Amino acid sequence: MKIDTKLTRLLGIKYPIIQGGMVWTSGADLASAVSNAGGLGVLGAGSMYPEQLREAIINCKAKTTFPFGVNIPLMYPDIEEHITTVIEHKVPVVITSAGNPNLFTKRLRSHGIKVLHVVSSLKFALKAEQAEVNGIIAEGFEAGGHNGREENTTLVLLQLLYRHPFKIPIVAAGGIATGSAMLACFHMGASGVQMGSRFLMTKESTAHQNFKDLVKSLGEGDTILSLKELAPVRLIKNEFYASVLELYQKGASTEELRSLLGRGRAKKGIYEGDLVEGELEIGQISALLDDIVSVETLMTTFLKEYELATQKKNF
Amino acid sequence: MKIDTKLTRLLGIKYPIIQGGMVWTSGADLASAVSNAGGLGVLGAGSMYPEQLREAIINCKAKTTFPFGVNIPLMYPDIEEHITTVIEHKVPVVITSAGNPNLFTKRLRSHGIKVLHVVSSLKFALKAEQAEVNGIIAEGFEAGGHNGREENTTLVLLQLLYRHPFKIPIVAAGGIATGSAMLACFHMGASGVQMGSRFLMTKESTAHQNFKDLVKSLGEGDTILSLKELAPVRLIKNEFYASVLELYQKGASTEELRSLLGRGRAKKGIYEGDLVEGELEIGQISALLDDIVSVETLMTTFLKEYELATQKKNF
Repeated sequence: MKIDTKLTRLLGIKYPIIQGGMVWTSGADLASAVSNAGGLGVLGAGSMYPEQLREAIINCKAKTTFPFGVNIPLMYPDIEEHITTVIEHKVPVVITSAGNPNLFTKRLRSHGIKVLHVVSSLKFALKAEQAEVNGIIAEGFEAGGHNGREENTTLVLLQLLYRHPFKIPIVAAGGIATGSAMLACFHMGASGVQMGSRFLMTKESTAHQNFKDLVKSLGEGDTILSLKELAPVRLIKNEFYASVLELYQKGASTEELRSLLGRGRAKKGIYEGDLVEGELEIGQISALLDDIVSVETLMTTFLKEYELATQKKNF
Repeated sequence: MKIDTKLTRLLGIKYPIIQGGMVWTSGADLASAVSNAGGLGVLGAGSMYPEQLREAIINCKAKTTFPFGVNIPLMYPDIEEHITTVIEHKVPVVITSAGNPNLFTKRLRSHGIKVLHVVSSLKFALKAEQAEVNGIIAEGFEAGGHNGREENTTLVLLQLLYRHPFKIPIVAAGGIATGSAMLACFHMGASGVQMGSRFLMTKESTAHQNFKDLVKSLGEGDTILSLKELAPVRLIKNEFYASVLELYQKGASTEELRSLLGRGRAKKGIYEGDLVEGELEIGQISALLDDIVSVETLMTTFLKEYELATQKKNF
């Protein structure tokens, strides 16, 4: 089996499935496993020091001969060093987010790197197209982690984009965890999906076991898009979130919020497993996730769901 | 052309398209036009006095011989009278929302009325199934007007429901305005869609021309889910919303919010066209809506989009 789309042809992969490059979860083990299973594995450089990124790229190359990517949030403090690193190591794909796609797209592309940019709105998608990215990842309100201020849901965002004649591939992201949802997104103009939360819940992700176990138990309404005054982020409503909420109810300033957030909150939660004090970033689709599987099992199940969905004719 | 699904068979309609029964917009003209065009037209009883509902039902029956429905929010003050009215007038379909489906389902069904119940979560969908409703309308965060506290988006909600073996039809609602989105929802287990905002923007809806013109101009991020302490509602960020926000920032109590909201805010905005002082309820998909068409044109366009989407094989 092979699923041929604009995205698979662009990236030279077998299945149009990108693993979201999430902070503290997406190292060489996860990325290489996804690439070996026919998707695009992605290293999450947002939580790596330059030296760690270099090491992760070298490890990933040792573990897979298939294309893989690196996700670089453009607000990253040592951004120049990350950009130099991916160019030096000839990383096949770079996914940029949270910033201006004009900054590095041309430079990366001039070295043969394919550039995808994450957007939360049609407005930003048009800007990314103008910046000559190779593809757009359209990510909705339901996604975990950092998110757009417009609060466009994935369903609304895809319909908005579909009316415009984009020539480059559109990848749907946010709230996707099943093969039937991938087919649904295809029918609204996407030629691939990016999944974060679903890949976080694998054996190969470096998220802490405490965190994965908590995600298993999550239900509807257990995540929320918060911290909108700083940079909107979807997280679990744990004790840390309760203290954020308390500050809001006191009418806190953005400075007070920033100081509560501090540094290392996401690491503490996701990587170190502190479920009380940590910032626990995960998507709304976590309500559906109740197992931790290998990447291979995940891909097989997902592709089976997709295949079944394509065969269904009676609604 | 005819689209045969579990929903069309349940309701005896040609196309699996329900027009949302919205306050101040959904009278006999709109409902009968939708039913005459092969969908299910729905009167919005939430903004009608009992006498007005009776009149609207009689008018609707005069204008169409096809099935139509009445939407009754279960928190309606004169609920008993509305229930008696739909039974007396043998309304084919009743859509209940914002309340406990156990209250009236059996009574309505014992008179041959088909009952659909609107839910915002899997949890409430399971309760509705237990209450023996004939079908479930699963409405996501992106929908206009009253909404769930869980903030499940339509995409997430559909995937959550799809994993459960519901025997009754599931109707997708919230953020849907194109035929391709209907096909997408079918692939996630829906057998029909309900659209509100898209039908509000028709010649037949009784929303004020000022309001319709404003909706034409809306873009991404122009609506928001607010008033979560009272009953969450999606509305346009106009001056009235700014005053709600101001109260929030002062740390207002729910009583203060309730007093600002007062009575008749939705009527003032939607029906009387006061874009400053009115509460302007509309869905997030309003960013896509930039024309006011007849119901017939809307249905033809929508069905063409659906047909095209079913033929697309290359993504």
